[in-house]
Formats: sequence, structure tokens, C-alpha cells
Amino acid sequence: MKPSMLLLAMLGVASTSLPAASPSASSASPSDVLARSGASDWRLVDPENTLYMQLKSGRVVMELAPAFAPIHVAAIKKLVRQHYFDGLNVVRAQDNYVVQWGDEENKRSLGGVPPTAPPEFLRSLQGSASFRPLQDADVYAAQVGFIDSWPVGRDPAKGQEWLTHCYGMLGVGRDTKPDSGSGAELYVVIGHSPRHLDRNVALVGRVLSGIELLSTLPRGTADLGFYAKPEQYMPIQSITVASDLPVNQRVAFEVLRSDTPLFSDYLNAQRSRHADWFVEPTDRLEICNAKVPVRIRH
Amino acid sequence: MKPSMLLLAMLGVASTSLPAASPSASSASPSDVLARSGASDWRLVDPENTLYMQLKSGRVVMELAPAFAPIHVAAIKKLVRQHYFDGLNVVRAQDNYVVQWGDEENKRSLGGVPPTAPPEFLRSLQGSASFRPLQDADVYAAQVGFIDSWPVGRDPAKGQEWLTHCYGMLGVGRDTKPDSGSGAELYVVIGHSPRHLDRNVALVGRVLSGIELLSTLPRGTADLGFYAKPEQYMPIQSITVASDLPVNQRVAFEVLRSDTPLFSDYLNAQRSRHADWFVEPTDRLEICNAKVPVRIRH
Repeated sequence: MKPSMLLLAMLGVASTSLPAASPSASSASPSDVLARSGASDWRLVDPENTLYMQLKSGRVVMELAPAFAPIHVAAIKKLVRQHYFDGLNVVRAQDNYVVQWGDEENKRSLGGVPPTAPPEFLRSLQGSASFRPLQDADVYAAQVGFIDSWPVGRDPAKGQEWLTHCYGMLGVGRDTKPDSGSGAELYVVIGHSPRHLDRNVALVGRVLSGIELLSTLPRGTADLGFYAKPEQYMPIQSITVASDLPVNQRVAFEVLRSDTPLFSDYLNAQRSRHADWFVEPTDRLEICNAKVPVRIRH
Repeated sequence: MKPSMLLLAMLGVASTSLPAASPSASSASPSDVLARSGASDWRLVDPENTLYMQLKSGRVVMELAPAFAPIHVAAIKKLVRQHYFDGLNVVRAQDNYVVQWGDEENKRSLGGVPPTAPPEFLRSLQGSASFRPLQDADVYAAQVGFIDSWPVGRDPAKGQEWLTHCYGMLGVGRDTKPDSGSGAELYVVIGHSPRHLDRNVALVGRVLSGIELLSTLPRGTADLGFYAKPEQYMPIQSITVASDLPVNQRVAFEVLRSDTPLFSDYLNAQRSRHADWFVEPTDRLEICNAKVPVRIRH
């Protein structure tokens, strides 16, 4: 069989015959749009909000979102700088759901980080200038779109907005009490987006690179994907704030800015897939299927 | 940290204080509902439509959907019975998308199975008696719900219905021409549901058991997650139709029937999560977040 099979599903090659679509639909593919991006279409990820998680298999790079969860992010960075996570383990890998790490044996001191934190599950609606809405409906939120390249849901009636539980998002595990998530136990979404968790847990960031090191971990066989035996844990060698490393040991990640005309074109290109491969162009785009490009600045 | 963190997100323990929800909302958890299921609430999966895929790491069990893609299913079973897949490989594992297997070097004969097949991407709308709709909107389809325990999208205006690309669904890879999917190259969804593929590819079944053997495969590093080198392929020892094995070598899988009052209760319990853990009950359910229980009959 040819390796091209299913390929075009990802590509969106321009077609000569476009069905009627929204006025904003375009015949350009997502990669066509990206190819004409300039330096100003990209945002450098702040090394002060970048975490490097070193596993035996490689490095997972994560961006933190202090604009959405400032207290949790500060707590996580403080824990990281105390080397709290170094030598702890990934203790849970539940298929089609999350991987999770922390101090399963509850042995370590939080070293001045409070054991509770205000539930930063949502924030007051900010000015809409930076909000780039998706035009299609959403099952879970009145509005969805992007703010500063983060996927968000919004409820204008309640004046609230929040990060959405898309694939690769980083969150803070908590117990039953809403304030029980200190930041010492973290999870990453590795399955179909569990959007019912939105507004119930603090999302604090996302994986920029290396998610396959987490998503391919053997699944735990105990309840909810916890590893049944400690010897199955995946050790975390270290977690580091990028800005604490010498510049020559950092990698400069950029994400495509969401407040540009080019980003709107990029979303439209993902929405309107008119490659020859498609017999039924979708002309819809769901928030967790909308990709935000990440690249390394050389 | 306590292992209970995040656990309740999955459980839906009954709460004593229910916010106003839909009239169909209930305080029972999904597991409460399942606990009162009787034998008649379950459907035995037909061994004639069950495939066992044997990998070195274990067995993946898949159910085929001849009611939606009869020609493709017949072709796949014919290929299986010719041992077409035995000794072939998983050749692609793209993170947050699909794993795929087939004859990458195009060496094998299809042995009488046609190289093309009618594009069974959708079917005419059947009677609605067996359709159990979800009540919430969907981004991609006018209606979504379940028919015979399969997740489906529907377009009453066009008189069409189709299987949806949820996590774990099994599809037939094809080239640009709509009829180019013979059934000899297959894929399974292992990421956030790529619903833009709905109505563009023939879905032919789903994984009932063992999906973690596919979802944890190392990701391919070539374009679109293909393995860069043949030595990275994951060999398929065999694929077998369950009914071709002696009864004592089969496993009797059952799925929860979707045409029962109990199934409606089960969906409502997934939709209305009022466990103490939840501060913001969702009261929404998206088709690919709706779980259909699978169990083994002993």
C-alpha cells in the first residue's frame, strides 16, 4: 500500500473546486498559511515560564500560563526551584485520559509552598480585543477561541473565561476540596479532551515538545491507571525552569501568535479542508482540533 | 500527595445538592447505573465480527461494523482469512492522531479482494427507533447519538448517518480517490477525535480491548508519524476472526446496548456529574466523551 494513504487528511492541499463555505474560507492549506508567516507572527515563549522535565527517554518542554493561574504557577516554579520534583515519578498513566506525577508516598516537604491554593479554575472575562473566537458552536462553552495562543472557553453571561482541557494541557491534581491543589501533583491530558474537567481544575500550562514521552508510557493497571507497583513508576530525573539554565542549554520555543490576521487565516485553513482528498469538506473546527503551531527559533 | 486526587473526575459519586439541570439529570453515577444492569442490557459481540490482532505485547480485540460498511467488512474478513495481515506491520504511529498498519512495501497479493471498494463513508438514514440521540449540540454534525451502541452523526436534511471518528475507532486508509480503500490498510484513532475525517473515510469498527498496545507504540519520526526505518515497525503476528477459533480460545465480549432505558440513564449520569469533587457540573456530553461500557461475559 502507498504511504500516501491518509496523508492528505493532514495536509489540506488547495483544491480547484471549492464548495460554498463561510466567507472567511480560503483555499490555502494550513501549511501554505504558515509558509508566509513572518517573525512578528510568532511569540517567543518566556524562559521564565518554561519547564524542562527530564526523563530517561528525553526532555518534555512545557509552557506555563501565569495569566490564567498566577498563584499555582508561582507555587510550581517555587517547587521546581527547590528541586521538589527531582527524583519523583510519573505514577499514573490512564489510557485516553491523563498521565500524572507527584509525591505518591507523601514524603517530601513543600518547603514553604502552601498545601492549598485558591481554585484558579477560571478568571474574569478580560477585554475581548485579544480574543480570537472560533465561529462554530461548542458542546461545553458558550464561546471558544484563543487568547495569547491559549485555547479558552468563555461565558459572557457570567463574565468568565478559562483554559480548555485539550490534548497536551497541563493541570494541577487536587482532592475533593477545591483549594486542595497545591501544584505538587500535576497531570497532562493524553487522550480525547476531557472537557467536563473545564472550570473544575486549574489548568496551568501545556506541553510544547516531547509529549510522546508521556503519551507512550505503559498504562497503569491499578484503578484509574495508577501503576500497581512502585517499580513501574517512571522516574523524573529533574524539572527545571528554563531561565535557570545557561542560555546555551536552553531551546528557544516560539508559538504562533493568535492575535494576527495570519492566525485567523490559519484557523480558516484548518476549518475548510478542500484538498482533493476530501469528498465532504468539514467547514467546522472544534477548539481541541485547532492546532497552534510551535517551532524552535534558531 | 494522595492517590485520590483527580479520581472523582472519573467516578461521579452521588451528591446531596443537585444544581438545576435537565429533567433527565439524575444523581446516580455512571457506575451506579451500570451496577443495576441486567443480562438483557448487554449485547454479545458476534464472534463472526470480532478480530483478534496478536502483537508480541498482547492481543488487541476489535469489533467490526458490517451494518455501516458491509463491503469493507467483508473484504477485511476475507483478507484476514487469507492470512493477509499475518507478518505485516504497524508502520505508522502519529501522536494524537492514528496508528496504521498494512503492506508498506506493497508486496502481497490481495488474493481476489478488489483493490477498490465503494466509499462506505455514510449510509442512508435508517429508522430512528434505534437511534438514541445526545441532547447537546455537536460541532460537526446536526445530530449525534448511538445506534446499536455505535457512535454516529446524522444529517436528517440530507438523510444520512455515519460512524464518528472517536478514540479507538477503526478505519480504512485510502488514497486520494474515494474508492481506493480496499481494506488492506487500517488505522485506529489514538488521539483527540479527528472528526473532520467523518464522512471522508470508511470507519469499519472499533477497539474493544487492548488499545493501550497500540496507543503506547513509539511514535514514528518520519512525516505523519510513519516509522523512518523498517526495523522500527511493530510486527503483527496474526489477525484472526474470532469465530474461526475453537470456542475455548475465544473471549466473549459484551457491549452495553444503546436502545434501553438503562443506557439513557447511563448517558445522563455521564452528562450530569454532580460528585462532590465537581464545583461546576458540566451538564453537557460530547459524543466522543460518552463512554460505552465493554465487559467480558464469564
